[in-house]
Amino acid sequence: MAGHLRRRALVLEYQGTNYAGFQFQENADTIQNQLEQAGQALFKQSLRIKAASRTDSGVHARGQVAAFDLAGPFPEEKLVPALNHYLPRDIRVRKSYPVPDNFNPQKWAKGKIYRYFIFNRPQSSAFFQDYTWHVPKPLDLTKMNQGAKLMRGTHDFACFQAAGSPITDTVRTLWHLNCQGKGDQVIITCAGDGFLYNMVRIIAGTLVEVGLGKRKPEQVQEIIKQKTRKLAGKTSPASGLFLERVLYRPSLDTYRHL
Amino acid sequence: MAGHLRRRALVLEYQGTNYAGFQFQENADTIQNQLEQAGQALFKQSLRIKAASRTDSGVHARGQVAAFDLAGPFPEEKLVPALNHYLPRDIRVRKSYPVPDNFNPQKWAKGKIYRYFIFNRPQSSAFFQDYTWHVPKPLDLTKMNQGAKLMRGTHDFACFQAAGSPITDTVRTLWHLNCQGKGDQVIITCAGDGFLYNMVRIIAGTLVEVGLGKRKPEQVQEIIKQKTRKLAGKTSPASGLFLERVLYRPSLDTYRHL
Repeated sequence: MAGHLRRRALVLEYQGTNYAGFQFQENADTIQNQLEQAGQALFKQSLRIKAASRTDSGVHARGQVAAFDLAGPFPEEKLVPALNHYLPRDIRVRKSYPVPDNFNPQKWAKGKIYRYFIFNRPQSSAFFQDYTWHVPKPLDLTKMNQGAKLMRGTHDFACFQAAGSPITDTVRTLWHLNCQGKGDQVIITCAGDGFLYNMVRIIAGTLVEVGLGKRKPEQVQEIIKQKTRKLAGKTSPASGLFLERVLYRPSLDTYRHL
Repeated sequence: MAGHLRRRALVLEYQGTNYAGFQFQENADTIQNQLEQAGQALFKQSLRIKAASRTDSGVHARGQVAAFDLAGPFPEEKLVPALNHYLPRDIRVRKSYPVPDNFNPQKWAKGKIYRYFIFNRPQSSAFFQDYTWHVPKPLDLTKMNQGAKLMRGTHDFACFQAAGSPITDTVRTLWHLNCQGKGDQVIITCAGDGFLYNMVRIIAGTLVEVGLGKRKPEQVQEIIKQKTRKLAGKTSPASGLFLERVLYRPSLDTYRHL
């Protein structure tokens, strides 16, 4: 099975707290550095790993996708446990799939799902400080969802892109954007065909300002229309952001049958 | 309000990972040590704190209750944020209540609720290693609940007490014991009028052996009947255990009106 395919896609989970983001760096510890070191230890030769998304420092993932090429045959069912054996405990490979040799995890991605976790009570959490943004004052979920509704759909999202980004085509489609209360947490779920730099964190920052009553939900329309970063809310902390899933068509599961 | 009462009950949340349990120790860092240091820093005089339960090293709490006496007047609404200011981030005071001067958090407790979290998938979690017990093989929830049903009620639980405990009255009542699947987790919820040393961890260890098919659910009856620790399952790791709530009658909330 899959003996003719060398490329493997990995579904990854990691806690970003102790890493300077995904992307390889010469003088900092990153997720890519760790993956390539684990691969080198396992296969006894250097390898290059490419991910669907360059998550920032402190950002987490539950379903990042990365791809690399096997240099030779390797027992398929042992790939995940063997890589995990060499990885630190805050980075886990969940699944591996043989994929076509031209599979590019970034270019082939049809969309992504992110979740942003807010811890919303007066005292911060003893457990979730690295996994949430602590907002001590109560959030109005109804207002947040009114604001979210105005963000959904196809818009020029220049307003939600970090200042100074070189990207000029800033039209994206948000298929889904929703704020949900769950115990002490407010969870913002966001799905779309593509995301600009810091886009989810600026959306979360803006919706929190709406939820705190600092802005009216209707202002979202004006923010989008003006296309300037200055009007939107602050960029929320990296700690609350999770890359949940990268979407492919066909799905990665399809390749199980290759 | 409550000006005549000096004793305060605190509802506490903490991550036990980095502490040698709740109980004060001269040469180790404990939750009690941290609370008393925070109190000393805040009130500029030493204080003694007593808890409902001496949680073990590595065990967590979301609703531990502890009591201490104020030496003088202190603004009621500032007590929680002021204590949190001096506490490390993995210990949080959630609430404080003025309570009668003879309130004893341990002796007045009518019961406790514990939760035990199991992370049940082949790969361990990048996020929850300190908050769960990783069991890689699939658990049979139906069988676990069959075993749990046989533990519920009033029994002599000598079988579920750590060997060498000096306690001889080992009859307790488990009001509730249930295993629930939630994504990759299996959560054991346990409520009762009192718990022997390591009781919840031995119950969890025994139920996991049932869930893995190493024991039949019916064996639970025999284990309880024989009253010997040797027949029960292994003590599960501290990392999965949370003291959720300590129950009082009347509830602590009642004292808000004192």
